[in-house]
Amino acid sequence: MSDIAPIETDALVIGAGPAGLWQVFQLGLQGIAAQVIDALPHLGGQLAELYPDKPIYDIPGLPVCTGRELVQRLQQQVRPFAPTLHLGQSVTTLQREADQRWRVGSSAGTTFLARTVFIAAGVGAFQPKRLKLEGIEAFEPAQVQHRLDDPAAFAGRHVVVHGGDDLAIDWALRLLDSPAPPARLSLLHRREVLGSDDPAALERVQAAIAAGRIALVVGQPTGLRAQAGRLQALELLDPQGQPQTLALDHLLVALGLSPRLGPVADWGLAMERKQLVVQPESCETSEAGLFAVGDINTYPGKKKLILCGFHEATLAAFAAAAQLRPDERLPLQYTTTSPRLKRLLGVAPG
Amino acid sequence: MSDIAPIETDALVIGAGPAGLWQVFQLGLQGIAAQVIDALPHLGGQLAELYPDKPIYDIPGLPVCTGRELVQRLQQQVRPFAPTLHLGQSVTTLQREADQRWRVGSSAGTTFLARTVFIAAGVGAFQPKRLKLEGIEAFEPAQVQHRLDDPAAFAGRHVVVHGGDDLAIDWALRLLDSPAPPARLSLLHRREVLGSDDPAALERVQAAIAAGRIALVVGQPTGLRAQAGRLQALELLDPQGQPQTLALDHLLVALGLSPRLGPVADWGLAMERKQLVVQPESCETSEAGLFAVGDINTYPGKKKLILCGFHEATLAAFAAAAQLRPDERLPLQYTTTSPRLKRLLGVAPG
Repeated sequence: MSDIAPIETDALVIGAGPAGLWQVFQLGLQGIAAQVIDALPHLGGQLAELYPDKPIYDIPGLPVCTGRELVQRLQQQVRPFAPTLHLGQSVTTLQREADQRWRVGSSAGTTFLARTVFIAAGVGAFQPKRLKLEGIEAFEPAQVQHRLDDPAAFAGRHVVVHGGDDLAIDWALRLLDSPAPPARLSLLHRREVLGSDDPAALERVQAAIAAGRIALVVGQPTGLRAQAGRLQALELLDPQGQPQTLALDHLLVALGLSPRLGPVADWGLAMERKQLVVQPESCETSEAGLFAVGDINTYPGKKKLILCGFHEATLAAFAAAAQLRPDERLPLQYTTTSPRLKRLLGVAPG
Repeated sequence: MSDIAPIETDALVIGAGPAGLWQVFQLGLQGIAAQVIDALPHLGGQLAELYPDKPIYDIPGLPVCTGRELVQRLQQQVRPFAPTLHLGQSVTTLQREADQRWRVGSSAGTTFLARTVFIAAGVGAFQPKRLKLEGIEAFEPAQVQHRLDDPAAFAGRHVVVHGGDDLAIDWALRLLDSPAPPARLSLLHRREVLGSDDPAALERVQAAIAAGRIALVVGQPTGLRAQAGRLQALELLDPQGQPQTLALDHLLVALGLSPRLGPVADWGLAMERKQLVVQPESCETSEAGLFAVGDINTYPGKKKLILCGFHEATLAAFAAAAQLRPDERLPLQYTTTSPRLKRLLGVAPG
């Protein structure tokens, strides 16, 4: 429970991936300002997290663009509507109030009172994959962390980055490039071969290994060795099945992110195979005023494509506008010709 | 009836506007090659015809682009699938064959035998609005035309452009800018005020009127005056209701284009308010194998937006693929990761 007054809003969008961003845009065209919440510390959802550098070919009008570029384009597109962003926090609770509004609570203690809610949570909130070793929690966050915020915090220490894919390589290079790098940097991976979609980064990290600036340790963590409440080393099994130890000051777990549907499943909404069932004409869930768009919803014919999420968010915005302003039914207008829409977009002819 | 052998195809797309082009793209991703037919001599449909230079703001990922630019982008995007284009001809007939294929005939005498047909005809085939004066047909196309192909063809003649909006202004300026301009150029409009969405063009035409390079004639055509089979003048009523005559060698009718739904209405398909009723999950009409996407279709919640046409074409492509290859059910794949889709797009990693 938070002591801070709840944020009252016409529209709360849960998830800042492509469907959520487009939801903000379409609500904006309806004259509805939105609050946005996302578990990640940045916009873009799956696009930003899973394939920032990979090309996408099936966005109409964009013959090719990366996930990162699409996020940037959508970010620019929603700018006229200046949504209030609540990043790095996930939704924990959702309940209907007596006045029919939705009370939504976040992991950061923020509370919203929203007249309409749009669940654009994709495959769920992205959370770091945890290293499962008994007693590891006791050393968090002082010595064990699942994210890398400030490389300079590890100046002069012995740091072990655990992982061998894009994320681990990225962290290792950021630590190496820091003006105050670690005294010793190890990359602990379950096998000798590192994997990356970024050939340049892979090459740099391999050169650093060859030059002895990074120690590549191959093994599987099996336990922790501590003394006087302080983590001293990781216990490993090497590829030959022999136990080894790896001394360290800090362990950075870079095993990737995995989405967790989280509390959405507990809200009592109609679901099918972990998807929220919606009305195809409005993307409304089994609860009035609660919409679901993008990968998290399902309806007959549903295809899990970014483009379909855009369409769904558009329908949801129209349906929400009709609920929020039951007495004012605007005919469909076009951004090309409507002075009203141009005003909302901030492009009214001078 | 044509003597030429019919073109056999898995997919025929009627209409080359944004929905039709995206239909080609999505069929391409399904490995289905398409034939495309459109009444206009170029791609783009309404986009190209009604707002080539006007900005569109609500295409996801394109914060602003003109109709022309969007057409160019879509054209580039369908290039890997090399659709066969049949432009400048409209569909006249559509019948089911005994083998369940569709026999489609065009105004140019082309016949198609198509296993699936996608009607992406928007608001219908665009045709020039005609000036309705008795006997006018007799002077077409020698002296009366409803389109301007080659301004140089009017060198040294007395040309009357009839109209006062974008199209008429565009033609007047093209004639004026021609290296071999008309000897005399009149703009005949029903009222003194010209209308244009292009302030620069409007300013130029008004300056030309002020400088006497274009004669602005205000009036309403009422009849034709001819001698020895040759059109000599237009009869008009001026704003005071007085009859006038306007001598001319050529009359260019620039009253705009109007879409005509045309024969679609005669094909016995389920319709509602001039729209084809489709299944929302597949965009299939009341006839199997016959789909309708974009502005021409309707279903619960339908919004006439370009974006929605993109979504509809996507669903129709999936549904058609299932009909064309009933034994082969491919799981949903992503252009970002699928080697098969990348191969189809011609971007397979080398």
